[in-house]
Amino acid sequence: MLKVPLHQVAGHQACDGKLGPLVDESGRFCKPLQSDERGSDEVAFYTSFSSNTRIPDHIRRFFPVFYGTQLLEASDGSGLHPHLVLQDLVSKHLNPSIMDVKIGSRTWPPESSEDYIKKCLKKDRESTSLALGFRISGLQIYGSKESGYWKPEKKLIQKFSAEDVRLFLRKFVSSNASADSDLEPDCSFASVVYGGSTGILAQLLELKAWLEDQTIFHFYSCSVLLVYENELALKGSSSGAEVKLVDFAHVLEGRGVIDHNFLGGLCSLIKFISEILTTPDEYTTKACLQDSEKNHFFSDSGTNE
Amino acid sequence: MLKVPLHQVAGHQACDGKLGPLVDESGRFCKPLQSDERGSDEVAFYTSFSSNTRIPDHIRRFFPVFYGTQLLEASDGSGLHPHLVLQDLVSKHLNPSIMDVKIGSRTWPPESSEDYIKKCLKKDRESTSLALGFRISGLQIYGSKESGYWKPEKKLIQKFSAEDVRLFLRKFVSSNASADSDLEPDCSFASVVYGGSTGILAQLLELKAWLEDQTIFHFYSCSVLLVYENELALKGSSSGAEVKLVDFAHVLEGRGVIDHNFLGGLCSLIKFISEILTTPDEYTTKACLQDSEKNHFFSDSGTNE
Repeated sequence: MLKVPLHQVAGHQACDGKLGPLVDESGRFCKPLQSDERGSDEVAFYTSFSSNTRIPDHIRRFFPVFYGTQLLEASDGSGLHPHLVLQDLVSKHLNPSIMDVKIGSRTWPPESSEDYIKKCLKKDRESTSLALGFRISGLQIYGSKESGYWKPEKKLIQKFSAEDVRLFLRKFVSSNASADSDLEPDCSFASVVYGGSTGILAQLLELKAWLEDQTIFHFYSCSVLLVYENELALKGSSSGAEVKLVDFAHVLEGRGVIDHNFLGGLCSLIKFISEILTTPDEYTTKACLQDSEKNHFFSDSGTNE
Repeated sequence: MLKVPLHQVAGHQACDGKLGPLVDESGRFCKPLQSDERGSDEVAFYTSFSSNTRIPDHIRRFFPVFYGTQLLEASDGSGLHPHLVLQDLVSKHLNPSIMDVKIGSRTWPPESSEDYIKKCLKKDRESTSLALGFRISGLQIYGSKESGYWKPEKKLIQKFSAEDVRLFLRKFVSSNASADSDLEPDCSFASVVYGGSTGILAQLLELKAWLEDQTIFHFYSCSVLLVYENELALKGSSSGAEVKLVDFAHVLEGRGVIDHNFLGGLCSLIKFISEILTTPDEYTTKACLQDSEKNHFFSDSGTNE
């Protein structure tokens, strides 16, 4: 029985009679193929990736398992439509907190059409992609049984500044983050979610090491999903923290060159997360100092590093 | 006594009555300030950098020493002109082989004017910057007393493809590279120039480690100079290999964000150089296999990594 996923934070969504992904109870995520070349390109990527013997196992686990394609009833009622059948990344989670981070300061592949470049470049400049090397595309934070999930609106997320990104990466691992809270994020889950030998930072660093060397794929407009389980994090020992890569409609062959665009953005995200781990309480102080510094080009007051 | 530098491979040159840098016999390199904000921005960078106590010494050595600014007779005969007075990076070299590599897939800072973005983006797309994350801007290779230097023309260098870059990074450390040679580069100096604990690769890796962490500066349109001494390399023990950073007319404050654009490009250059060290003879085979693969999207034949 296919149904609309409960925990989708970005991308096309199957609600109100629109075309979007569906999940089943056996842990499969069925994503309708986009009708243009993006659909076939994503199938080509999964087909190639899943049979590629040069992908080490510790890297393969960052990617959804691919079960092939299948004709399924589309969520928009338009009849049979080809779908990618993938692993549902959050099916084993009860109340996942999820963040979708689109990596790369450039979301367009080198040989794109002029129109496509223009469209993407505009988005990259208006969002934080150009400045930070990544942008937050969606998120949900689980609060408690009473408060449920906090899922900021798409329009709000699209307007995130660099400081908003810094703030939301903190809120994401805080027990006091909610829609109506202006509280300083307490970052109380930072060490169990971001930190530790199996935490998000350690996983991102593994991915980074592979990207410094691999020249098989270039991942444009691809996201990393950061997922953890609030109730596990509350217990303090583990958090079920996972990093997954998703969205491969713009993957190109690397042709002997590393994916410097994805790698650069990933390193920037890593730095943001490292700073939360080393200075969990410094958000406000730091932001204020930085603001006051904006008119002091190349000042040496030691505050912006 | 100021004179035209012997070993300049890129940038404006002081010949035929044009405005360009001059050197003196005490090892100083005098670079005329560009008349627009690039001139004052470069002074601002050097002033800030040289007094910044957060730059570790092992990183400072990659930058030219800054001796201030000075009014000097311009090389174009136009009278007194303000100059940056810098360390002449090659004054202690006898016959330096030099490569200037402009780092970053994007050479324009985020807040540039539309015209400037358009101009830079065009160059980045036409050169290898976009695809590789860097481009070769100039080079000279010392052959021998008889043959002297080989310095390919600017126009040729501007047309370098990814494969040309791969080839010239090999020729740069070969004893059989010259204008009229179609020989497979022998890479006979690769291990003493690129390799070893003090070689170019080790130096680039030190720079990379700093860039993963530093959020003080963003270096747009900045180059790394790779320099070594042919006659030392011939002896086989050391090569006087040095990495230096130059051209800081487009440096911005990092504002708490790493320079993901420069870092990504640097990692790409590092990968190219690592491959020369691990597979010094594989150039032709590899290039051919890659060519034959171009029409096999996502093939898994194991040749392009």
